[in-house]
Amino acid sequence: MKFNPITPEAVAAFAEIVGQEHVLLPAAAEAMLRYTHDETEDLRYEPEVVLKPANAAEISRIMQYCNENYIPVTPRGAGTGLSGGALAVHKGVILSTERLNRIISIDERNLQATVEPGVITQVFQEAVIERGLFYPPDPSSRGSCFLGGNLSESSGGPRAVKYGVTKDYVLNMEVVLPTGEVTWTGANVLKNATGYNLTQLMVGSEGTLGIITKIVFKLIPHPPQNLVMLVPFRKEEEACEAVSQIFMAGIVPSAMEFMERDAIEWTSRYLSLDVAMAADEQAHLLIELDGNDMDLLFKDAERVYEVLERFDVGEILVADTEKQKEDLWRLRRSVGHAVKSNSIYKEEDTVVPRAELPVLLRGVKEIGARYNFKSVCYGHAGDGNLHINIVKGDMSDEDWNNRLPEGIKEIFRLCVELGGTISGEHGIGLVQRKYIDIALNEVQLRLMRGIKELFDPRGILNPGKIF
Amino acid sequence: MKFNPITPEAVAAFAEIVGQEHVLLPAAAEAMLRYTHDETEDLRYEPEVVLKPANAAEISRIMQYCNENYIPVTPRGAGTGLSGGALAVHKGVILSTERLNRIISIDERNLQATVEPGVITQVFQEAVIERGLFYPPDPSSRGSCFLGGNLSESSGGPRAVKYGVTKDYVLNMEVVLPTGEVTWTGANVLKNATGYNLTQLMVGSEGTLGIITKIVFKLIPHPPQNLVMLVPFRKEEEACEAVSQIFMAGIVPSAMEFMERDAIEWTSRYLSLDVAMAADEQAHLLIELDGNDMDLLFKDAERVYEVLERFDVGEILVADTEKQKEDLWRLRRSVGHAVKSNSIYKEEDTVVPRAELPVLLRGVKEIGARYNFKSVCYGHAGDGNLHINIVKGDMSDEDWNNRLPEGIKEIFRLCVELGGTISGEHGIGLVQRKYIDIALNEVQLRLMRGIKELFDPRGILNPGKIF
Repeated sequence: MKFNPITPEAVAAFAEIVGQEHVLLPAAAEAMLRYTHDETEDLRYEPEVVLKPANAAEISRIMQYCNENYIPVTPRGAGTGLSGGALAVHKGVILSTERLNRIISIDERNLQATVEPGVITQVFQEAVIERGLFYPPDPSSRGSCFLGGNLSESSGGPRAVKYGVTKDYVLNMEVVLPTGEVTWTGANVLKNATGYNLTQLMVGSEGTLGIITKIVFKLIPHPPQNLVMLVPFRKEEEACEAVSQIFMAGIVPSAMEFMERDAIEWTSRYLSLDVAMAADEQAHLLIELDGNDMDLLFKDAERVYEVLERFDVGEILVADTEKQKEDLWRLRRSVGHAVKSNSIYKEEDTVVPRAELPVLLRGVKEIGARYNFKSVCYGHAGDGNLHINIVKGDMSDEDWNNRLPEGIKEIFRLCVELGGTISGEHGIGLVQRKYIDIALNEVQLRLMRGIKELFDPRGILNPGKIF
Repeated sequence: MKFNPITPEAVAAFAEIVGQEHVLLPAAAEAMLRYTHDETEDLRYEPEVVLKPANAAEISRIMQYCNENYIPVTPRGAGTGLSGGALAVHKGVILSTERLNRIISIDERNLQATVEPGVITQVFQEAVIERGLFYPPDPSSRGSCFLGGNLSESSGGPRAVKYGVTKDYVLNMEVVLPTGEVTWTGANVLKNATGYNLTQLMVGSEGTLGIITKIVFKLIPHPPQNLVMLVPFRKEEEACEAVSQIFMAGIVPSAMEFMERDAIEWTSRYLSLDVAMAADEQAHLLIELDGNDMDLLFKDAERVYEVLERFDVGEILVADTEKQKEDLWRLRRSVGHAVKSNSIYKEEDTVVPRAELPVLLRGVKEIGARYNFKSVCYGHAGDGNLHINIVKGDMSDEDWNNRLPEGIKEIFRLCVELGGTISGEHGIGLVQRKYIDIALNEVQLRLMRGIKELFDPRGILNPGKIF
């Protein structure tokens, strides 16, 4: 790919489109800093310019200009990504969607909402709950991440096990194509058999096919009741096995989160939370049930206990108060940050059919033993989505940079052998790119590259990502 | 498009691939007959040859041969389609998937099943229910349609309102591309952020991008209890409005089916079923609630009654026995056949945001009055998916063929204005092709045509469909 550098004329053209105050140049070093990284490891890439357009019309003009002039554009939400997708690896423009931050409408009659991509996920969740409605996708970074980013990476979160992931709530999107054309991808309906599914093609495309400027979500009635419990297991693998058996008993919890002992220890220390753990407890499941009726939840909980009795579990903690529930969830959501604060690490976002989780977990530990790395594993056991935090600890830089990738390849090959793949909800972005051919074959890659070329003939949109 | 006719050499080559007994030529007129039509209106297209391959390897060889020789191939499931998608409009090969009819595995630990595309939907539903599992998609033709066809047309059915449509249960597919290459589209996981979503691109592509040869479905635990009621309304529009209000009351029924008075009258006569209807009842809602717990269903039913009290409803019939439930469902499922037996008709598969249903219904009647057609409307009110059966009655052939399409265009334009589209679950296929630019703009069409060309550079797979 041959791109052009950004000239003073280009900067002037951008300023004319978005207004001078929404153009950021490297000279403004401090303001620029946050646009040079995301939450992925310790990567830094400085763009030539950051643009903060206000709407689709401005984005369309930017794209037209950049397409004509072969200038790379990297779209960016809140920068909470975990695969380097929002990094300007080919320099050029960072196009931030932060000013497209309106909840345009919440349509209670149709249980739909129309939003801009720069709305923070939690802000949206809370706005719809106020109307008795529910937007279930719930990534750990919900307090800061943007809905547009959630769509781009096909985010999930703990409730996916019952309610599905972000993609399952998107009905329609307005997007600006790399050529500057603006189009909706579908219609505002629950069923659509009219042409190819451009909506789902755009979801999870990591900002490589177009820039999302509006989203129509479906909503569901909010289940007002829930019940949260933390279940300690003496054997890690039994925690994974219990997950399958709870489903087989006919229960669909709204969350089934797995945490290794280290994950809980590091996180409770990081948060200064007091979590009692017996010395022989190796892993925990955080289980949430939700619904309209507390009596029914207690009945379901009884059936969950019956399943758990088959395993070697410790004392089950049932959260009595909202505060306790919140603490348990805060514990789970903070594992990533806790590990990060403890050591340099790499996070892998593996996913397998859920009953294969014990095999994956055993494999990760075995591969770790051979490659001499420690891992802290946790994640969405109900979906078979295991986050593997590989901590650098006392590994040499040489091994970290050159030997570890071979170990990661082994983990990914194991995922694929088990019927899984290499990313469940973080995306491929920049950092998993080198592993993509473990997950995708030549035919798939050819089709995907062809789609990329169709949408973006000059390859200017988020270059250097996915493939 | 310039295709080659099928030569005796081609027939010999096909016989070598699939075996002589699985090649059908027009000379076998009676056996050929069923492959000349589907369930769409009164269309007839005779293929040059029907092939019944046994597996993906044979299909791959057929596609390679046809691609090399510019021979059109029309894939076909059970032929229950309602948009002419399985008709060989350019002659050539009909490729029937009827011999790919194995349920390969039902994986209870992972709540997944792997099947071939020629399995009958109801056969699959019943096989999984035996294991306590549930495959919710439930098209009216479930007793004869194939799962592969359901995927190709993105079928829905009544339970979509709670459980989603076919596309929401597909995790992964094995497909043969028009070039003969065989690939899986994704992985057997509930979350996947690894490259573009080829799986969802293939779903609903109406057999124009590839031939599905294996499907991995996700399943859910089967809710053992249900409650079915038939609610008569004195005003059609109130039936539609009640649908939205039931959702707003926090209830998600497993079905909310709308039937106009004529739909019930014609169908009960057709089935010789006795359905009591007061003279002033204009429409009915068939409401189903399902779950694990009968007490909870009664509670939910109470809340449904509370909502219904706001409307002018007649006596609510609650099905007491399995037989009664079955009869009510049979009534609903048979509307299409009943109308067909009554008159020549065209079925439109409109879909709008559900609260817009009353506006759509009013619009259809108003347009009908202007164009002088009668319509029988029914369908999945919970999804905003209204099937409009336009009956020919005493309309002249001239008006039926030349004037009616203008009326249909008006209906479709109204759907799009209301945020909806022109097909919810039947597909565009052959018969809605001429209306496609009402629903899709130039940009969308260019992208879709580009995708078609990428997958099928010679345009041999199901030509003449969608665009």
